[in-house]
Amino acid sequence: MTEPLTLAQQLIAAHLVAGRPVPGEEIALRADQTLCQDATGTLVMQELEALGLDRVRTRLSVQYVDHNLLQADARNAEDHVFLRSAAQRFGLWYCGPGNGVSHPTHMQRFGVPGQSLLGSDSHTCAAGALGMLAIGTGGLDVALAMAGEPFHLAMPRIWGIHLHGRLPDWVSAKDVILELLRRHGVTGALHRILEYHGPGLAELSTWDRHVIANMGAELGATASVFPADDAVRAFLRAEGREQDFVPLAAEPGSRYDDTEDVDLSRLQPLVARPSSPGDVVPVAEAAGVPLRQVVLGSSANPGPRDFAVAAAMVRGRRVGDAVSFDVNPSSREVFQDLLRTGAVFDLVAAGARIHQTGCLGCIGMGQAPAAGTHSLRTFPRNFPGRSGTPDDSVWLCSPETAAASALTGVLTDPRAWALREGVNPPTLDLPNPASVNRDQFEAPPLPEAAGHIDLVRGPNISRLPELDPLPDELSGPVLLELGDDVSTDEISPAGAQALPYRSNLPRLAEFTFTRIDPDYPAEARDAGPHFVVAGHNYGQGSSREHAAITPRLLGLRAVLALSFARIHEQNLANFGVLPLRLADPGDRDRIDEGDRLTLSGLHAALAPDAPAQLTVHNTTKGEDYEATHRLSPRQRAHVLAGGAIPALSAHGS
Amino acid sequence: MTEPLTLAQQLIAAHLVAGRPVPGEEIALRADQTLCQDATGTLVMQELEALGLDRVRTRLSVQYVDHNLLQADARNAEDHVFLRSAAQRFGLWYCGPGNGVSHPTHMQRFGVPGQSLLGSDSHTCAAGALGMLAIGTGGLDVALAMAGEPFHLAMPRIWGIHLHGRLPDWVSAKDVILELLRRHGVTGALHRILEYHGPGLAELSTWDRHVIANMGAELGATASVFPADDAVRAFLRAEGREQDFVPLAAEPGSRYDDTEDVDLSRLQPLVARPSSPGDVVPVAEAAGVPLRQVVLGSSANPGPRDFAVAAAMVRGRRVGDAVSFDVNPSSREVFQDLLRTGAVFDLVAAGARIHQTGCLGCIGMGQAPAAGTHSLRTFPRNFPGRSGTPDDSVWLCSPETAAASALTGVLTDPRAWALREGVNPPTLDLPNPASVNRDQFEAPPLPEAAGHIDLVRGPNISRLPELDPLPDELSGPVLLELGDDVSTDEISPAGAQALPYRSNLPRLAEFTFTRIDPDYPAEARDAGPHFVVAGHNYGQGSSREHAAITPRLLGLRAVLALSFARIHEQNLANFGVLPLRLADPGDRDRIDEGDRLTLSGLHAALAPDAPAQLTVHNTTKGEDYEATHRLSPRQRAHVLAGGAIPALSAHGS
Repeated sequence: MTEPLTLAQQLIAAHLVAGRPVPGEEIALRADQTLCQDATGTLVMQELEALGLDRVRTRLSVQYVDHNLLQADARNAEDHVFLRSAAQRFGLWYCGPGNGVSHPTHMQRFGVPGQSLLGSDSHTCAAGALGMLAIGTGGLDVALAMAGEPFHLAMPRIWGIHLHGRLPDWVSAKDVILELLRRHGVTGALHRILEYHGPGLAELSTWDRHVIANMGAELGATASVFPADDAVRAFLRAEGREQDFVPLAAEPGSRYDDTEDVDLSRLQPLVARPSSPGDVVPVAEAAGVPLRQVVLGSSANPGPRDFAVAAAMVRGRRVGDAVSFDVNPSSREVFQDLLRTGAVFDLVAAGARIHQTGCLGCIGMGQAPAAGTHSLRTFPRNFPGRSGTPDDSVWLCSPETAAASALTGVLTDPRAWALREGVNPPTLDLPNPASVNRDQFEAPPLPEAAGHIDLVRGPNISRLPELDPLPDELSGPVLLELGDDVSTDEISPAGAQALPYRSNLPRLAEFTFTRIDPDYPAEARDAGPHFVVAGHNYGQGSSREHAAITPRLLGLRAVLALSFARIHEQNLANFGVLPLRLADPGDRDRIDEGDRLTLSGLHAALAPDAPAQLTVHNTTKGEDYEATHRLSPRQRAHVLAGGAIPALSAHGS
Repeated sequence: MTEPLTLAQQLIAAHLVAGRPVPGEEIALRADQTLCQDATGTLVMQELEALGLDRVRTRLSVQYVDHNLLQADARNAEDHVFLRSAAQRFGLWYCGPGNGVSHPTHMQRFGVPGQSLLGSDSHTCAAGALGMLAIGTGGLDVALAMAGEPFHLAMPRIWGIHLHGRLPDWVSAKDVILELLRRHGVTGALHRILEYHGPGLAELSTWDRHVIANMGAELGATASVFPADDAVRAFLRAEGREQDFVPLAAEPGSRYDDTEDVDLSRLQPLVARPSSPGDVVPVAEAAGVPLRQVVLGSSANPGPRDFAVAAAMVRGRRVGDAVSFDVNPSSREVFQDLLRTGAVFDLVAAGARIHQTGCLGCIGMGQAPAAGTHSLRTFPRNFPGRSGTPDDSVWLCSPETAAASALTGVLTDPRAWALREGVNPPTLDLPNPASVNRDQFEAPPLPEAAGHIDLVRGPNISRLPELDPLPDELSGPVLLELGDDVSTDEISPAGAQALPYRSNLPRLAEFTFTRIDPDYPAEARDAGPHFVVAGHNYGQGSSREHAAITPRLLGLRAVLALSFARIHEQNLANFGVLPLRLADPGDRDRIDEGDRLTLSGLHAALAPDAPAQLTVHNTTKGEDYEATHRLSPRQRAHVLAGGAIPALSAHGS
């Protein structure tokens, strides 16, 4: 008799191609579906081109355009044209600009319980709301999955989150995930899959679960999974896809590697303070902060309910005079629902600015707040400067907190607002069935037609550069010495200036690390091969592999950190940058910017069976440091070859 | 017995402060109302500050925020904060971002037949639809009007446009003004007021008249006026303001200086080809051009009808796969109307991208098309590069043509589309009464409170620089030799890159003329005092005075052209740049870039009673050229002082 399995273990077993599902050991998984968005997808398409792929081998692959919608010059529109041609060329579905954020759109039209989904966006994990095994990762991993390769990762620990009780009035799903962030911070779920279970699930619709699964990324989780239960069936029925429903749940008697208990009835409105999603306090503790901007929407609060509750709260009222109340409908279909019910009218009449459907300014591509002002957002992240404004002050909250605060003009606990105004929690009128708009997708052409399609490459669209192999000895200066929790936003900034160059790597490289040190690109070019030293959780946040490839193009060959965020560590290996862990945490402070380091005998040290250990020699100080790595034999080969693409090309030739 | 007056003559007589209303003679008019938008308004507020104004002296002044809404970094939001504080400080109404384009918003809430309106936006003339005397001009003229000074201009000729007949199906107001542009081009109405009259008016609602009056700017007209008749009464009643109605019309027997006849029944769908609003042909002649973008909205087609007709055409259909169908609701109240009727739902379901209420990408601040693709827009202008894309290909059309073309993916005559699809012209269900949202305006504080309000000046907001007086002898090189119809878009580009610096003149100056010559700013700084030579209609288009002040900051002291656009000529004088007209058109070609010119004895030549004539000496070629100017004695004093502000400051001290 086999051991009963948790839902996450079942999903892994069903997609396991290689390895043993023992926490920490490398496993390989089959990806049924993939998704890309435009800010990462242009590079993925260049990778498919470099790999010489003829046609995707997944069940379903979709290219969304949701990030770079501003078109402040011709470049974003050229990316859209390029992506559409690439989708046709390689056999992906194409979902163009204005149709919505990839995650809610994908869940509405393509999500299927039990299938696996790999996406080049860190919030791909949101699809776990449907009982999918949904993982965000670097673009090259997604490109390889489209090429039929399995996805490799270290088997995560399964963390059972037991939910019980009923949410109090004015407390919602966002407060559930903020509570987990309050307890565990931004590294609390590294190398874990969160598996939600228990009677509290009955309180949470599929859209609520999407909110919670989405921001599992902020905890550092590999994935989040919810059972496919009656709520999921109801969701799929409303979406006209009940036939895609498959019931899924943990087997009785299965055991979690780690456990957590959340009594929903004890939760309260929470807010993440500037500038980390992990710095969470009760709204009541921070109430009164004056606000110039309140933003409703994004992948973190995309459901019709999230907008409808805010619309009901502001109906017949007027937002604060000084407040810009920015609303960003998350998907075309959700927007249609909200138009049908009059929720959009109520928001507009109360003073909202309705923005085009998409990611709005989540990574600084629009709606940047004024310097010295506070912005309150239902977004998933508030890393420093991510809003597009240096030294910004961005707070994260639920739709209820956002709406109450927009009305008062200061950060406001919605319970206090309701008490003062004598308002009861609204009864929401949500369309059922939901609006369905299949026309927003272009199906891939038949294979025989696709072969004749050329990539439409505007002047701003580069090809993937060649990457040279790792030398046996690496010597160079330390150009940056960084603290903990450096995000990929700080390594390769997004924002309206940089984002149009996501398809143009040589130009994008000029933005590398400039939020931290404006001189880094020039210094790196002068230095040639060089090192960066950092603290814990290096590379948290967005999955963008640009944060690996652009420093690599400038000469970065090894990062010495105390620990890494999951996706970024994988991205570094994919692009031939050594992710090394300093064995003695004190060594980080012993190394200074400008010190010259040497790594010798790398070819032997990275042999498949060599111990995962190296010595770093500081030639400036005459010191040696021990470092470890977590590279699998496959990844070692990639790093030695200069990256996964040269490794696979060499293999293929 | 006095001569009977046309409506335009009556409006001028009612506001005349000085001068005789004889075409060509300088007159001074009282401004009852003013409006500013943000792209020009930050400078106007700096001018009010430089003038030391305590409180506006108009009946009503409004500051709108409709252009710089993208907030790609902190600067636009900082402008909004600055403008709000300045509105409170100086006693203006404030209408913040997201409330709509100034022109439709102003007409809906503040327009009053018979009053005069001066605005720092060239499309201010749209309010002529209500029987207002509405004139767009440079910001300093508006600042002076707010300070209680009259507005000076040469008395225009009155051009009677006799409308008769009924518009055919699928032909609408936009085609009326495009027909006038087809006949007369972009200079056809220079120094004229268009006065519409005749039985054809019964065909045109106030919103239709707004379309026609708005694009009078493209003909070069000083203003456009329509009678305040039953259509205007009905509009004001629908807006909840019937009490503001005053009937106005030309007096029987009054005579126009010039006349024109338009038989509405003979019009057809028209399109302005790239890259001039004056290059108009029938849609049928250009049908089939493949489109990547179709844009609906803007100040040129802002009425509920314009969106509703397009919504009815696309209802239940789907726009072309390759087409981005961008929709930009023009005002919050119009948006509310369209939400109420379901028109927004129909547009979204058909594939539209709904953008925030405002000017969208009219001057390149967003939705720039991909290079090498065609964009079809209901916008008022398509000057080269104005869309934000160099070498763009932008076409201008009616909402009917836009909707039919969005559906087919190619430029399409809506009559041909209707015939093919078997579609009859839709019966539109437009809300009456219209949506009213007075909350979108912040009233100015009481004078006693305003005195304590400080301007909130972000790091990007400059002060007005000092301008030195005109020397008696001016000597320097010709840095540019330009053709006809150079627009202010080419002199001081808008676009998402430059616009955030509209409040920061030293930084903005770095963009001057760069669309024509990227090296101009550097060369100008090196050269010091210098000249520019141009052809006819120099400075057409937008009213932005930045096109006068930024080259002035770089050393431009005189422009030698064959003729000037009205507003720009006035702006040059306001900022101390000599606008000179070459008497012999052949002289333009005799002068080459790099030639050194000298103007001597300027102080005597610009004395109040000196003949309006100067000699330009070309020291490089040893030639002399005769030049004239149209500066009034007042303007001569301004130019001699270095600009109107130094002149007025000197006068005041």
